[in-house]
Amino acid sequence: MHVTMEEAQKAIEAARAKAVSLDTQMCIAVVDSGGNLKAFHRMDDAWVGSIDIAQKKAKTALFFGMKTGQIGQLSQPGGPLFGIEHSNDGLITFPGGIPIVDKDGVMSGAIGVSGSTVENDHTVAEAGASAIGATELPDHPWRT
Amino acid sequence: MHVTMEEAQKAIEAARAKAVSLDTQMCIAVVDSGGNLKAFHRMDDAWVGSIDIAQKKAKTALFFGMKTGQIGQLSQPGGPLFGIEHSNDGLITFPGGIPIVDKDGVMSGAIGVSGSTVENDHTVAEAGASAIGATELPDHPWRT
Amino acid sequence: MHVTMEEAQKAIEAARAKAVSLDTQMCIAVVDSGGNLKAFHRMDDAWVGSIDIAQKKAKTALFFGMKTGQIGQLSQPGGPLFGIEHSNDGLITFPGGIPIVDKDGVMSGAIGVSGSTVENDHTVAEAGASAIGATELPDHPWRT
Amino acid sequence: MHVTMEEAQKAIEAARAKAVSLDTQMCIAVVDSGGNLKAFHRMDDAWVGSIDIAQKKAKTALFFGMKTGQIGQLSQPGGPLFGIEHSNDGLITFPGGIPIVDKDGVMSGAIGVSGSTVENDHTVAEAGASAIGATELPDHPWRT
Repeated sequence: MHVTMEEAQKAIEAARAKAVSLDTQMCIAVVDSGGNLKAFHRMDDAWVGSIDIAQKKAKTALFFGMKTGQIGQLSQPGGPLFGIEHSNDGLITFPGGIPIVDKDGVMSGAIGVSGSTVENDHTVAEAGASAIGATELPDHPWRT
Repeated sequence: MHVTMEEAQKAIEAARAKAVSLDTQMCIAVVDSGGNLKAFHRMDDAWVGSIDIAQKKAKTALFFGMKTGQIGQLSQPGGPLFGIEHSNDGLITFPGGIPIVDKDGVMSGAIGVSGSTVENDHTVAEAGASAIGATELPDHPWRT
Repeated sequence: MHVTMEEAQKAIEAARAKAVSLDTQMCIAVVDSGGNLKAFHRMDDAWVGSIDIAQKKAKTALFFGMKTGQIGQLSQPGGPLFGIEHSNDGLITFPGGIPIVDKDGVMSGAIGVSGSTVENDHTVAEAGASAIGATELPDHPWRT
Repeated sequence: MHVTMEEAQKAIEAARAKAVSLDTQMCIAVVDSGGNLKAFHRMDDAWVGSIDIAQKKAKTALFFGMKTGQIGQLSQPGGPLFGIEHSNDGLITFPGGIPIVDKDGVMSGAIGVSGSTVENDHTVAEAGASAIGATELPDHPWRT
């Protein structure tokens, strides 16, 4: 049910390879299905401020089973989830956090990446998550 | 008077029944008139991130004697309560939190629900609160 | 792997029955195998301060797979784990928190009880945990 | 100089190999010379409560340039540093955290290990730190 250490390392290696190809320095975090940290990797010269953001992105994606950027669209001023980032000791709701879904459609964990543009963060997270599973739950009440 | 445990359980059972009828998985929290947790129920497969949100919705509704969605309307950018969610260790100001008002018009507690769309969260909270009382205070300074 | 809501309710009902038989008013919390709150029940007239303690006892037992009183013995001044309560946003290391172990010897969650003497808290927690599983892991590195 | 990611991984691999040889499941954290998380590795079946303790041990060792067990001896009741664990958002002052010192005698980071007895935690941390440097600073004001 939980992502294993072997899977977490495979995800981090894939994310790191993508970060290198983009010439970026990233923090990469993997959490298990309880939202608890499984593995963390800070590339040399990555921002110190990204340590917490990468972990919060992974947790945010896991907490609600969605990519963080999708939650960010729902939590803008006037949106249905405006202010959700004040829960759970602080969420990060811009791109870079992605659920990891196993072959049975069950969320086994999530990955969070921070250190460059949100587009690059998202691309690197996708590379990591895709190396070990799917990145979308089969169904989701917030998805239109 | 505080909501009793018997009432809290009745509210949770009614909320849970509504959640099942909507095919949703919810976290349901009841707080007393001091804003302190009375009962909590996490349905199987409910989001981990909803544990905190359900409790914060219940507290938010209790703290100000209003449905959380009404506070959310007042706390948008430019609104009179903009930023209120930074108080009280974090509020949640979108729908799903509802006061519980006894037959004398006194607030005895509140319920908070999280786990689906805000419309479903609100519907389930209404089912819970209505099972044991009213959901609006007789008068309120913020109500226009 | 995780304790189910049906199991959590069964544990809470057994704990409550024991609390009633002891003429005590208890807060009873159940967490899943990730340490996340599954269910909570505050009996009428239980102390407000026990809300947090019951939850921290359940988390402490789950975090280390031991009864909280055993951790308390190891964390006395001069003991090997002195000061461990400063981790994980605060632990409670006196009796009343007990792991819940399934038939395969795997920890599926934990229960925490607070509201009376530590002896009564422990007795009520045992009644709750025993209703749905074992209360000791098959092996443990801290057990002598 | 900060510990590099290559060094951090080498330390974690050495620590992990030692943990496997001891038949233990550990959380292993490496921080840089600023006390900021560089790498984290949670072996399958390691305690959830050890995630935070491993990181706090690494930070504690780094914050004061000493093995955590030595700080623990100074912080007992009546000792000169009694209560130091209340600083820095919580320290852990029992064995398992060790400074990493480069060939010039400069502290480049620290490692923290949690998951078994404090003796095993310390042994695993030593294996990790020793793989990439020394574990004692040349001089230290607290060393008698």
